[in-house]
Amino acid sequence: MERVPVLKIGDILLVSIQVDMSDQTALQLQEDLAERIVATGCDGVIIDITALDIVDSFVGRMLSTIASISRVLDAETVVVGMRPAVAITLVELGLSLNGIRTALNVERGMELLAAARADEYGHDDEADEPDDETTATR
Amino acid sequence: MERVPVLKIGDILLVSIQVDMSDQTALQLQEDLAERIVATGCDGVIIDITALDIVDSFVGRMLSTIASISRVLDAETVVVGMRPAVAITLVELGLSLNGIRTALNVERGMELLAAARADEYGHDDEADEPDDETTATR
Repeated sequence: MERVPVLKIGDILLVSIQVDMSDQTALQLQEDLAERIVATGCDGVIIDITALDIVDSFVGRMLSTIASISRVLDAETVVVGMRPAVAITLVELGLSLNGIRTALNVERGMELLAAARADEYGHDDEADEPDDETTATR
Repeated sequence: MERVPVLKIGDILLVSIQVDMSDQTALQLQEDLAERIVATGCDGVIIDITALDIVDSFVGRMLSTIASISRVLDAETVVVGMRPAVAITLVELGLSLNGIRTALNVERGMELLAAARADEYGHDDEADEPDDETTATR
């Protein structure tokens, strides 16, 4: 059980991290995700960290790496479900998760990705008028 | 990290099981799920077991219990992502997962739930005409 599953939902790949990430698991996840982005043509990745009590520098770096790989493959990454305590610890540790977008939960993450996609292609296929990308509520 | 997160996506609650289920974790998941169904009013639950190499009688019983609890709360449960080897083992063990619906992946599971909902309410809000609930492809 050392492989984190990548779930396809519409145009989005969803990864829910629940296990302690070892070097091996992290590498495997990066590979799996890159392969799935290419295979499915998805342009959005949501990483759910609700289950994580701690995000240390290793996990922070992994999230950054995943975001960078996705970006190279033309997919946007959003990290969702961060606990308040995790956010506080991150800031205290001086880890600011540079280059990583965050949203409160999966649904907000999906809205963020839809807005980013609409922005990129110059039209909005999810709503009637373009929203500010962080405040869309439906 | 002994709590399995319950993610809300639209009208559906998604649970991705990745950790070894202990009595404690299973009970906690049942409670969390029941509370979320009531709090959100969701009428569909998808349980992803892609990450499971083995589904023994304990996990099988847990899935049945979750399905029964959800049904009492007027929500439908679909188990998705079962590996071929898991299906073979289940049958060999004589566990037939009675009362549990299954689908190949999360997307198929969502289609199944949408079709079941349309069926129940006598109209179809996801497609132009009612589909057979297991074969809907879009």
